[in-house]
Amino acid sequence: MTLTPSPATVLCISLAARPGSFGIRFHNHLYEQLGLDYYYKAMTTQDLPAAIAGLRALGIRGCGVSMPFKEACMALVDAIDPSAAAIDSINTVVNDAGRLTAYNTDYLAVRQLLERHEVDPGTAFALRGSGGMAKAVACALRDSGFSEGLIVARNEQAGQQLADTCGYGWVRDLDDRCPPMLINVTPIGMAGGADAERLAFTDNAIAAAQWVFDVVAMPERTPLIARALALDKSVITGLEVIALQALEQFVLYTGVRPTQAQVDAAVKFARNG
Amino acid sequence: MTLTPSPATVLCISLAARPGSFGIRFHNHLYEQLGLDYYYKAMTTQDLPAAIAGLRALGIRGCGVSMPFKEACMALVDAIDPSAAAIDSINTVVNDAGRLTAYNTDYLAVRQLLERHEVDPGTAFALRGSGGMAKAVACALRDSGFSEGLIVARNEQAGQQLADTCGYGWVRDLDDRCPPMLINVTPIGMAGGADAERLAFTDNAIAAAQWVFDVVAMPERTPLIARALALDKSVITGLEVIALQALEQFVLYTGVRPTQAQVDAAVKFARNG
Repeated sequence: MTLTPSPATVLCISLAARPGSFGIRFHNHLYEQLGLDYYYKAMTTQDLPAAIAGLRALGIRGCGVSMPFKEACMALVDAIDPSAAAIDSINTVVNDAGRLTAYNTDYLAVRQLLERHEVDPGTAFALRGSGGMAKAVACALRDSGFSEGLIVARNEQAGQQLADTCGYGWVRDLDDRCPPMLINVTPIGMAGGADAERLAFTDNAIAAAQWVFDVVAMPERTPLIARALALDKSVITGLEVIALQALEQFVLYTGVRPTQAQVDAAVKFARNG
Repeated sequence: MTLTPSPATVLCISLAARPGSFGIRFHNHLYEQLGLDYYYKAMTTQDLPAAIAGLRALGIRGCGVSMPFKEACMALVDAIDPSAAAIDSINTVVNDAGRLTAYNTDYLAVRQLLERHEVDPGTAFALRGSGGMAKAVACALRDSGFSEGLIVARNEQAGQQLADTCGYGWVRDLDDRCPPMLINVTPIGMAGGADAERLAFTDNAIAAAQWVFDVVAMPERTPLIARALALDKSVITGLEVIALQALEQFVLYTGVRPTQAQVDAAVKFARNG
């Protein structure tokens, strides 16, 4: 499906404990549609420093960085973009002739989505989760002007730390609180996971909410999103996040910004992988 | 032209100062014809140790190694196959789950070609050249039982050293000698080179020879091969060498041996790049 490879073909990769197919299909599909002589390959590694040194030595143009490499990778690059510095975590490395700059396109994607959906920054929210992606989302909310928020996390240390970082509150459970925006950044509702059928928030909280934002991307209609749509809530889906963060990676790697129609087609193709 | 990339796609690369297109086209064409989920990418590097460490860390399956990396690469692998040990030079690295083994498929290809063409090991030869490839060819001749040979090289130190390594004689010029087999392992006759139109041996030597072997692959009909064919000599061409060494790399990387028809088609496709 890609162009005939040539000596000039530019290689981009991703590093993850368990490489998925979304990025491969999204990027390669757009390369083909736009006639770009690029190739995208998903990889894993047992030796992150050597992998990043290899990225530099082999002239690999870019690298998507997923769990569990996001934090350790920061020390291995030459420069940190504000998007990554803001949250002390990266998901993208761009190689400019041996100089490596790290970005966090998850953060960039969440900020863009809040703006695109015109979510009023005055909206109070509850965000469930305290991992790396929760940090990206919470920092994006903070930097987009959302001042009233609660981090909901069983892990007190991680939850409190994230809340302190962003100036939000922390609670172990939401209990009877019903904020107007609910955000799930845990694996609850993820296809194939232990909690695939569960809701990240209670029926009451969902019924009372105005906005429901689920970062889980597979399936696109998680139980939480499905319930929210049934109740006519405004939603932001995990598919929007991974599509937009992949697009921002694409732009960083190629310097080309595809049209929305091209992006939509690439997302559709990538989801059918 | 390749298969739709997947997380399981196996990556093979090459490292050369100036990456060419033959390997890319040869390997990727065969991957497609045989339905193998592989992708081949030509690369260069300014930092060979980091590139080889990256090969290991990124799980890249194999690497073709060209000038100027053939000697330096030996210290960076875990094991040396006899084909490379014989000549202290490698052109192929195979990565078995992090363990790197180096081979020299140029050497293997020349040995196979001498056998395939049924060249009598009693045939005396003159081999012009003293670089890395000359060493591979001379060692292949030695190990195939050719006992009577002359290394022809302007560079006395390199020529004498190669002659000593293999138990052959060295001369600066062939002068009036007319051995039955002439072998060119210099860039003389190479398309685009300074000596593209020149013959590596004199008219008299060619006229008197039985065998003419030119390692220059581009064009397939070098001035030397063209002259030899016009005089009804038996020839071995550089295209045979690069095709066969690429095939042996292919087998090492994939464990699959294509049919001769498949190889011929891949060579034809690769040459049109």
